[in-house]
Amino acid sequence: MKNIRFDVEYDGSDFCGWQRQPGGIQTLQGELEAQLGRILQENISLTAAGRTDKGVHARLQVVNFMTGSAMELSKMAYALNSLLPDTVRVRNPQVVPLDFHARFSAKEREYRYFLLEEPSALRCRFTGCSKGSLDIDAMQDAAGLLFGEHDFLLLSKEPADKKNTVCLIKECEWRWENDAIVFRIRANRFLRSMVRYLVGVMIAVGKGRAVPEDLRMLLDEGLLTFPLFPAEPNGLFLWDVSY
Amino acid sequence: MKNIRFDVEYDGSDFCGWQRQPGGIQTLQGELEAQLGRILQENISLTAAGRTDKGVHARLQVVNFMTGSAMELSKMAYALNSLLPDTVRVRNPQVVPLDFHARFSAKEREYRYFLLEEPSALRCRFTGCSKGSLDIDAMQDAAGLLFGEHDFLLLSKEPADKKNTVCLIKECEWRWENDAIVFRIRANRFLRSMVRYLVGVMIAVGKGRAVPEDLRMLLDEGLLTFPLFPAEPNGLFLWDVSY
Repeated sequence: MKNIRFDVEYDGSDFCGWQRQPGGIQTLQGELEAQLGRILQENISLTAAGRTDKGVHARLQVVNFMTGSAMELSKMAYALNSLLPDTVRVRNPQVVPLDFHARFSAKEREYRYFLLEEPSALRCRFTGCSKGSLDIDAMQDAAGLLFGEHDFLLLSKEPADKKNTVCLIKECEWRWENDAIVFRIRANRFLRSMVRYLVGVMIAVGKGRAVPEDLRMLLDEGLLTFPLFPAEPNGLFLWDVSY
Repeated sequence: MKNIRFDVEYDGSDFCGWQRQPGGIQTLQGELEAQLGRILQENISLTAAGRTDKGVHARLQVVNFMTGSAMELSKMAYALNSLLPDTVRVRNPQVVPLDFHARFSAKEREYRYFLLEEPSALRCRFTGCSKGSLDIDAMQDAAGLLFGEHDFLLLSKEPADKKNTVCLIKECEWRWENDAIVFRIRANRFLRSMVRYLVGVMIAVGKGRAVPEDLRMLLDEGLLTFPLFPAEPNGLFLWDVSY
């Protein structure tokens, strides 16, 4: 058996998220496994660095899978790109050590969230929208509270009995990029829907519906003092994974 | 009766073009007329500056329609945006003189075509792809031949018996914009699918499958010396209209 790794880029807007689902629901894992299975004539089970939600995109997703196939890797990637929709591309196929695991071997992941203050028809697939002006300084203050180790259970969709819900945030900032406001966050790991909840809190802060202290109380004391919503998925990109 | 004009921005990737079609086919004109009709309780017939093909986008499309409604314009636009999908936004509603016609009153239109040399999953909805490197200098040379007045019938989907097929090209150039190559063309008018045919010729030139002289022979002498294909619609934007 060989362990094969490749990079995947996708526009998630037509998919019900990464994770395989029964009943003909279109997911990225399901689509990639089905097409790889056709090419290799094997049942393929993919592991991914991050399981993105419905509507979330990936600039760089990393996956791996085991196969007995002797097919040349560039030919495999070419065949896969021929069968996949144009909104999904695979790149850089390589044979990796048998103990490489796209999820558990990853050291850091980076997500970015793109946000507009006014709706745009041309950009709505790839940006969230606050529908109103935002106080970026207050959002940056809130982002500053996230650095370091925190328990993010309350800012995720994880079940309450999940064991380890502590993440180490290494980089975290808002900045203007042309006419969009971009949130960049790098951590050793992320919980389910965590970035969308974090962005949701900071949009509430930017709109004056919450203050950075509300986020501090939630993080440090588990006290929820404002309405908590995840931000829309379409502004979110899995941006980078490092091993 | 009042004549009302507004601007429309759209992501054309989920629509079968601008023009209304029978049988529940999703088009921009059909969707806008249906929702305006619901709001105003009237049959609405929209006129547009440019009838974009299936998959073509608009940064700025201009439309007008007649109505007997006394509804406040900002309320009408708000209601319309509430009913339309996020991929279509209307803006700047205004009452205009009764003789204003979005198509016949327009003095100039501008289209832009965005092109990448390598496929991108995240950008495929909004860019064409040459799947290989392009000789931009040769493409620029070909673009230079388009300036001024020419009969573009052979570079369009118009029926052969269409009366006036002469267009006056006022601006026309390729340029790099970050990692995309962008074609910008401004003219008094355009024929059906004309920009896609022009871009198709220039991509053939960029790939070395045709030379600028082939375009000159087609324009000046009606001689077709190379395989002619329209470029993919998804890279094309109706960019500006002036009155």
